[in-house]
Amino acid sequence: MTQPIARRFPTPALDRLPDDIRDRILAVQEKSGFVPNVFLTLAYRPDEFRAFFAYHDALMEKDSGLTKAEREMIVVATSSANQCHYCVIAHGAILRIRAKNPVIADQIAVNYRKADITPRQRAMLDFAMKVSRAAEEISESDFAEISRHGFGDEEIWDIAAIASFFALSNRIANVTGMRPNDEFYMMGRLPK
Amino acid sequence: MTQPIARRFPTPALDRLPDDIRDRILAVQEKSGFVPNVFLTLAYRPDEFRAFFAYHDALMEKDSGLTKAEREMIVVATSSANQCHYCVIAHGAILRIRAKNPVIADQIAVNYRKADITPRQRAMLDFAMKVSRAAEEISESDFAEISRHGFGDEEIWDIAAIASFFALSNRIANVTGMRPNDEFYMMGRLPK
Amino acid sequence: MTQPIARRFPTPALDRLPDDIRDRILAVQEKSGFVPNVFLTLAYRPDEFRAFFAYHDALMEKDSGLTKAEREMIVVATSSANQCHYCVIAHGAILRIRAKNPVIADQIAVNYRKADITPRQRAMLDFAMKVSRAAEEISESDFAEISRHGFGDEEIWDIAAIASFFALSNRIANVTGMRPNDEFYMMGRLPK
Amino acid sequence: MTQPIARRFPTPALDRLPDDIRDRILAVQEKSGFVPNVFLTLAYRPDEFRAFFAYHDALMEKDSGLTKAEREMIVVATSSANQCHYCVIAHGAILRIRAKNPVIADQIAVNYRKADITPRQRAMLDFAMKVSRAAEEISESDFAEISRHGFGDEEIWDIAAIASFFALSNRIANVTGMRPNDEFYMMGRLPK
Amino acid sequence: MTQPIARRFPTPALDRLPDDIRDRILAVQEKSGFVPNVFLTLAYRPDEFRAFFAYHDALMEKDSGLTKAEREMIVVATSSANQCHYCVIAHGAILRIRAKNPVIADQIAVNYRKADITPRQRAMLDFAMKVSRAAEEISESDFAEISRHGFGDEEIWDIAAIASFFALSNRIANVTGMRPNDEFYMMGRLPK
Amino acid sequence: MTQPIARRFPTPALDRLPDDIRDRILAVQEKSGFVPNVFLTLAYRPDEFRAFFAYHDALMEKDSGLTKAEREMIVVATSSANQCHYCVIAHGAILRIRAKNPVIADQIAVNYRKADITPRQRAMLDFAMKVSRAAEEISESDFAEISRHGFGDEEIWDIAAIASFFALSNRIANVTGMRPNDEFYMMGRLPK
Repeated sequence: MTQPIARRFPTPALDRLPDDIRDRILAVQEKSGFVPNVFLTLAYRPDEFRAFFAYHDALMEKDSGLTKAEREMIVVATSSANQCHYCVIAHGAILRIRAKNPVIADQIAVNYRKADITPRQRAMLDFAMKVSRAAEEISESDFAEISRHGFGDEEIWDIAAIASFFALSNRIANVTGMRPNDEFYMMGRLPK
Repeated sequence: MTQPIARRFPTPALDRLPDDIRDRILAVQEKSGFVPNVFLTLAYRPDEFRAFFAYHDALMEKDSGLTKAEREMIVVATSSANQCHYCVIAHGAILRIRAKNPVIADQIAVNYRKADITPRQRAMLDFAMKVSRAAEEISESDFAEISRHGFGDEEIWDIAAIASFFALSNRIANVTGMRPNDEFYMMGRLPK
Repeated sequence: MTQPIARRFPTPALDRLPDDIRDRILAVQEKSGFVPNVFLTLAYRPDEFRAFFAYHDALMEKDSGLTKAEREMIVVATSSANQCHYCVIAHGAILRIRAKNPVIADQIAVNYRKADITPRQRAMLDFAMKVSRAAEEISESDFAEISRHGFGDEEIWDIAAIASFFALSNRIANVTGMRPNDEFYMMGRLPK
Repeated sequence: MTQPIARRFPTPALDRLPDDIRDRILAVQEKSGFVPNVFLTLAYRPDEFRAFFAYHDALMEKDSGLTKAEREMIVVATSSANQCHYCVIAHGAILRIRAKNPVIADQIAVNYRKADITPRQRAMLDFAMKVSRAAEEISESDFAEISRHGFGDEEIWDIAAIASFFALSNRIANVTGMRPNDEFYMMGRLPK
Repeated sequence: MTQPIARRFPTPALDRLPDDIRDRILAVQEKSGFVPNVFLTLAYRPDEFRAFFAYHDALMEKDSGLTKAEREMIVVATSSANQCHYCVIAHGAILRIRAKNPVIADQIAVNYRKADITPRQRAMLDFAMKVSRAAEEISESDFAEISRHGFGDEEIWDIAAIASFFALSNRIANVTGMRPNDEFYMMGRLPK
Repeated sequence: MTQPIARRFPTPALDRLPDDIRDRILAVQEKSGFVPNVFLTLAYRPDEFRAFFAYHDALMEKDSGLTKAEREMIVVATSSANQCHYCVIAHGAILRIRAKNPVIADQIAVNYRKADITPRQRAMLDFAMKVSRAAEEISESDFAEISRHGFGDEEIWDIAAIASFFALSNRIANVTGMRPNDEFYMMGRLPK
């Protein structure tokens, strides 16, 4: 591939990485057929790599409360507001797959207020967007509104933590100029 | 203390926490004389607690490149822009101690452009603020400008990663309504 | 299709439309295999329909100066900033086809500053975005900058006029809740 | 007149224009006593000229639903937000004449929220301003609010379409640096 | 006149005012032929009235450095950005008279960047607008830029102080809903 | 002290000041033990100095309606939004003393929405912040909301006037680069 993995900062060679990081990367490659660029970009800093993916997995691989597709909706909506190439395109792909819906990611990326989602999911994204864009203004009325849609403490924490974690992730991706792999653009768009 | 640790979300009892988390908390208490509220608030989610502090320590406890005081400057400047009580007040205290300067934290919190810092530190904070507030607009000219002040790839990554990590941290603190401990307000203000 | 053409305002039946409008719609259907929803939504007002498409064609069907693909780049970039479902998704499809590039539309929609475009195209989009978002601040220095990339009066007018026309179009689409047809999401993503 | 018609882009000579455009311009001159600069500026592009004025007339010359003065109120309010010299000053003149009110245009241009208008007109301008400035956030609650003031689908479309059309017009005028004719400043200020 | 002097807060009767304030008001009436509403609105608070007009006169009645017309340009430009009815319309009138120019106030109110002013006046207004809208970002480069146009310390202080004083004035006028007297709208528009 | 009183504009020598101004400065020094830099910075312009402090005292030294501590809360909250070093740090000190509360100023400076204040004080600061940041949008609903908390016309005027006066003060301080005296940082932090 002629395109770089990221526009800034060198990407370490796989065989010079610590074993645990190389093993994780090889496992992802085995499963997905390619190495998502986020793994190679963050491998520049092994300790941060470990913390980043531990945090990511704690939030995104859970299956209670919010569905995995709903978690990805939060990522796509907030990452689009932050104009993050990698996160919108890579997590857009994951959202299409998890929601089994080929159009939902583009809808949420452009304007989540107009997307074909339930009123409960709309309330979830309204809350997530406020965390992402104006967390300093979050008040009791925001908690009251989201609770009205049946979200409890566990789900609200998840929504807030995912929006917050991708506030971190979007910034790293934008600073490093991390590129989404070409594979992501088409994933989940065609019926299996 | 009559004030809660955080306005939202329950704080788990110390003796019900996983051993590693309780041990870390007790070690901090031993060292500082009190338990900073961030530890008790995040203990609500042990896996996220572990990832959060691993990430934090990887960025803030390093001593190469940026000084520890400079790292705290980034935290205070960006957390103030995000209007985060816990981070401005707790890290303001740490900044005063690490910089051995009783006024620098308040200066940076109010308006870092007017603070008594070096031009190099000003360039560091300009870059950090752009990562925090408009990372989607970071361009080659920003890298050129900060490089002109002698920062290399290692330091630039640190600046960006600290600003990004506290983008996460500020949002969690604002959503949970995490309170700074009373102890922080005075720390580092009096000569030893 | 169970989804409405637009969320607000009734869509007139084809057989009750003025002949010229019905003929144009049938011609589009013949060529594309479906009727893009913008035609049915705007047919609510025949006179505005005629003016809208006359304006559109005057700007988008020209082939001198800017290429047709570049014209669509302007539409996608500015419509994304305006969060317009119909325009980003429908014109994203047209851009993929005209540029013969399956990833360019998503790249420009998320963050045109990071897209794989030439410096000249970047200057074109910078100017278009300023017209779209802050035309009141356009000054001689903007003209000087874009001229430096080889754009002459004819091309600059085109860039400005396209950004301006879609400022109109995006607002109409957002107010009417105009939906992109399902066909657009996949167009131009697969090699012919 | 020593001042140019527009700061950028050449203005074509009247006798080199297509007949229909020259005829329209001469008719306006006959009626008004001068040629408003918008006609000469847009004549640079005959096809766009025709579409522009066809669109304009379809929206502004109607007399059902909104009054002509109310249509001009929308133009003045939104054009002022967009800081458009030509539109605020020329349509301010037309508003004064159509409303037979020498102060209403200045009031609306400075701050429509403080102007001496009816609550119904205030609701009309609130909706128009949201279309002009944040159409992506228009939601059912905005339609509910404006309906409460007695506006039906026909009027709401008109409000939205006028605000949208002048989103286009304001941008063209700002980019070309189109000047309002000196005649406009005083029109409608003195009793007949 | 049926319109109130201000929408909020009572206006004291002239004969119940302290002598010095009543005298000033009568003197203005004598000179202008009417009592500008700002005098009656602020008379609600005699001590603040005295301080306000002392400050105003210190800044606006000087004739060294900036001309009186230039001082009014600063008022009109910044008050328009703050959408202040009273200040734009009343000081617009004064500007027309002091500049002996019937169109300059409307031009500056709509978009000072497009007004027929000198490059030096443009630099003056750029600086004033930054003071008015983003004083926290004023830096050495702003002083360097304005000095380049020949402004010295005395003039720069005046520009900044006028923009600052009307930041106060505009807010008071907006909160009280202070109305410009009808007389202002036409003042200075006709040749003497 | 090696630090200047203000970064821009010369500070006049005490013995060259008009008697009334020198007397006021000496009286302050007598009472406080030092001369707050605002006195020396503004002495550059004796007439403006007199008007400024007359206005200040009329608003801040009253003791009816709002308490003196509440008046300082308004100063700290709005000055922090305007990022004014002098005002946040000097008035933060005064607030700590008047409220007999060593932490309240830092809380309000960082995010008044999270400070330990009463709902009535929160309403007061919400109103003050709207005056400071968006006075052009103040409407009847804002008056209704603040009245609901028991504030009458006298208090509402005070809130608005204090927020407005510090809109002026913050801008002067930011343009002159006025420095808070070192003494302010610690005042009111320790129990007497």
